[in-house]
Amino acid sequence: MDTASVLRELSGKARPLKVVMFGAGELGREIFREARRSWYELVAVDRYQGSPAARVADREYVFDMLNGDAVRHVVETEEPDVVIPEIEAIDTEELLELERDGWFVVPNAEAARVCMDRKLLRERIAEQGVPTSPYTFVETGDPEDYREAVLDVGLPAVSKAVMSSSGKGSHYVHDEDDVEAARLAAKNEARGRGDVAVIEGFVDFDVEVTAITTRHLVDGGMGVTFAKPVWQYQTGKGDYHGSGHSPDVADYLPWGPDSDRRDEELAAEAEERVYDAAEGIVEALGGAGVFGVELFVKEAGGEVEVLANEVSPRPHDTGMVTYLSHRPGLSEGGLHLRAVTGREVPFDEEVGGHRILRPLHPAASHALKAPGEVEGYGLRYRGLAEAERYAELYLFDKPFAYHSKGEHVTCEERMGVALARGHDLEEAVRLSESAAHAVEMRAGDTDWSAQDEDEGHFATR
Amino acid sequence: MDTASVLRELSGKARPLKVVMFGAGELGREIFREARRSWYELVAVDRYQGSPAARVADREYVFDMLNGDAVRHVVETEEPDVVIPEIEAIDTEELLELERDGWFVVPNAEAARVCMDRKLLRERIAEQGVPTSPYTFVETGDPEDYREAVLDVGLPAVSKAVMSSSGKGSHYVHDEDDVEAARLAAKNEARGRGDVAVIEGFVDFDVEVTAITTRHLVDGGMGVTFAKPVWQYQTGKGDYHGSGHSPDVADYLPWGPDSDRRDEELAAEAEERVYDAAEGIVEALGGAGVFGVELFVKEAGGEVEVLANEVSPRPHDTGMVTYLSHRPGLSEGGLHLRAVTGREVPFDEEVGGHRILRPLHPAASHALKAPGEVEGYGLRYRGLAEAERYAELYLFDKPFAYHSKGEHVTCEERMGVALARGHDLEEAVRLSESAAHAVEMRAGDTDWSAQDEDEGHFATR
Repeated sequence: MDTASVLRELSGKARPLKVVMFGAGELGREIFREARRSWYELVAVDRYQGSPAARVADREYVFDMLNGDAVRHVVETEEPDVVIPEIEAIDTEELLELERDGWFVVPNAEAARVCMDRKLLRERIAEQGVPTSPYTFVETGDPEDYREAVLDVGLPAVSKAVMSSSGKGSHYVHDEDDVEAARLAAKNEARGRGDVAVIEGFVDFDVEVTAITTRHLVDGGMGVTFAKPVWQYQTGKGDYHGSGHSPDVADYLPWGPDSDRRDEELAAEAEERVYDAAEGIVEALGGAGVFGVELFVKEAGGEVEVLANEVSPRPHDTGMVTYLSHRPGLSEGGLHLRAVTGREVPFDEEVGGHRILRPLHPAASHALKAPGEVEGYGLRYRGLAEAERYAELYLFDKPFAYHSKGEHVTCEERMGVALARGHDLEEAVRLSESAAHAVEMRAGDTDWSAQDEDEGHFATR
Repeated sequence: MDTASVLRELSGKARPLKVVMFGAGELGREIFREARRSWYELVAVDRYQGSPAARVADREYVFDMLNGDAVRHVVETEEPDVVIPEIEAIDTEELLELERDGWFVVPNAEAARVCMDRKLLRERIAEQGVPTSPYTFVETGDPEDYREAVLDVGLPAVSKAVMSSSGKGSHYVHDEDDVEAARLAAKNEARGRGDVAVIEGFVDFDVEVTAITTRHLVDGGMGVTFAKPVWQYQTGKGDYHGSGHSPDVADYLPWGPDSDRRDEELAAEAEERVYDAAEGIVEALGGAGVFGVELFVKEAGGEVEVLANEVSPRPHDTGMVTYLSHRPGLSEGGLHLRAVTGREVPFDEEVGGHRILRPLHPAASHALKAPGEVEGYGLRYRGLAEAERYAELYLFDKPFAYHSKGEHVTCEERMGVALARGHDLEEAVRLSESAAHAVEMRAGDTDWSAQDEDEGHFATR
């Protein structure tokens, strides 16, 4: 049955509907928090007990979701109306089989499989005629083969485990000294297969954005609705560090919020190009739900160019800013819930024929990471009174912090996010950063500690 | 220790903070839903298992909270940072003793006691110089005494159990034929003592509003912040039926949204008078948290008069409209959580020196009641696809529907609320009503049934 038919049937079904979510982290928690006001039966699955979304679920299962038998067992036992894979480290072949057996997997099992495989995804994007950065694939086992592949693509480059997410297994290669660290990161930190890395030539882009794209029922058929492009910035480790957006895209398109240049016409062109590229990619993937389409935006000689990067077939780290910037119920988690249960999604304006939700005000998000020395169970937070003067704190309620450690690089575990609103995007970013760095954490008997000062958003690139 | 000192201490304390909530219904669920994003440990207590707020709590206790020993046992076992009484049917003497023992009960134990006793409350309001309707108290045991008291106050009148809430035990007395039904409602449907009723002379008001008033830390001391006055309307049974508010108070002040008259100056005067009256009453009650101050607004000869009615020392039925109309995190549940944990509350504008939060857009709420014939466990809903075209549905996820039955009057159990936004208040109200009446319910094997058509909001008064 095609997605629209499934959704039409779901929308007419009596509630409660039952949802099983595989991977019950912070992005999933927001989906369940939204569901928790309209009578869904909620089942969370994760590798550990007490995961963020499990704390708002009706019950939880705990196992490694790379075990396809266990995944199937839960689906056949629970008989859910909707299966939401919210994690890359899951047996995607089993999801395909479950879908063939008639279970509704979102966005669809094939999209879940393609998006977690950077090789398949790049092929799919190329079919849409959307350009990407130069890239090659290489096995991570042999240091010399790996080094050669990196130098072929050219420095600077970004190395990423072919199957991973959230920056795990990713590493910037600024010069030759970084090559071995990058290889080990891809090999050892992947959330899935670590045997192959993709090496991406560094794109000299002006700004990186995420198109939070919701594919959902529109008048009985399928259509998409966009959030305004979400500007994002990362640290040297390649993982999400902060994001923001604004009702006025000229605040950050096409040159980023730190630019003194401003051009309404180019901004409008960039905005439309972002939606065009994202729509093509999402239509190729199909299914229902929120996709986070990461795109590079570049201006050269008065022309705007948009290159595709990655796609999450689910809510996206950078989209957490919508928890504060969108109207109640329309955070990316709320949008995902609506889309996968057959509800329509409203829109505020049309841009180039696309349906657009407008943020209420400029807003920014900044990751709240556990400092490297804070590790283990028994987490506590202080300094919140000061932090909450600047921003809202969304803490993920994780029962522990464990950092992803490569031999050369440690990715600190993300424990929450600071969400700020400002008169403009720059103010919002500064406030979110001030809040994140005011929080101190400890685990068990460790010392109280705040996260390392990073280079700051405006110096990141 | 005074409230400000307690709150300052709480705001500096490491998180997680622990909250015990007595009474875990729909208004409490929103408090816990808000808390569920910032690492609180949440304990729900109610008379039945699987109550709305228990489904987002870490654990639940089930007992009758008029049993003071049980109330104390939970507090002493859990050692919470904050005790939230979210129900009138609780041993308020025990709350006073717990407070004396040093536990932080919000807003404070005395306010909880006063607000559930209509006699004490009216005395406290009178001390503030705020007028009320004419009233008298009478025992409900003797039909003749009761009849005499009603006729003394004069018809039409409203009879209410002296200790109750949410319209339980309340009844309009339009003419003498209604007297006995009103007595039995007060006697048999009270949520607490049913032996005494208050008879209130009918105020020929133009509009009834709730001042959603938050008392919280401001610069280390205590201050209040208001939502824009929430317009409310009831059915003949005297319980909450719908509400709404708008950024532009002249849409409904001082004559209500159904009036063709419009006067910006009188509206501004009415708005300010509402805040003045509510602030006086809330300052007299003290403590921290959201108060729902119900007020009648009346215009006569170009003069605006404001009369006090009732006060909830907690979020209020009519304030559920803020779930949709306020910015994310600032619903009345979010405001209550902030206030009782020592956080400040932002404001958007000042009106007559008062701090005011502005709604994002005109919005309305309409109760979703179980039809009288739908009763018991195994509730299911359908017609939601149509309903959700008009409005957001907040379903309370109650495991059953049982109606409050007097001998002559049945108050249908409220199962949810439809929340709509509109270009103006009237459109929002119509949309919320359309949504509520599109939903069909069944319990177990009952027939599918939609709630009775009521007289409609514009005909209610």
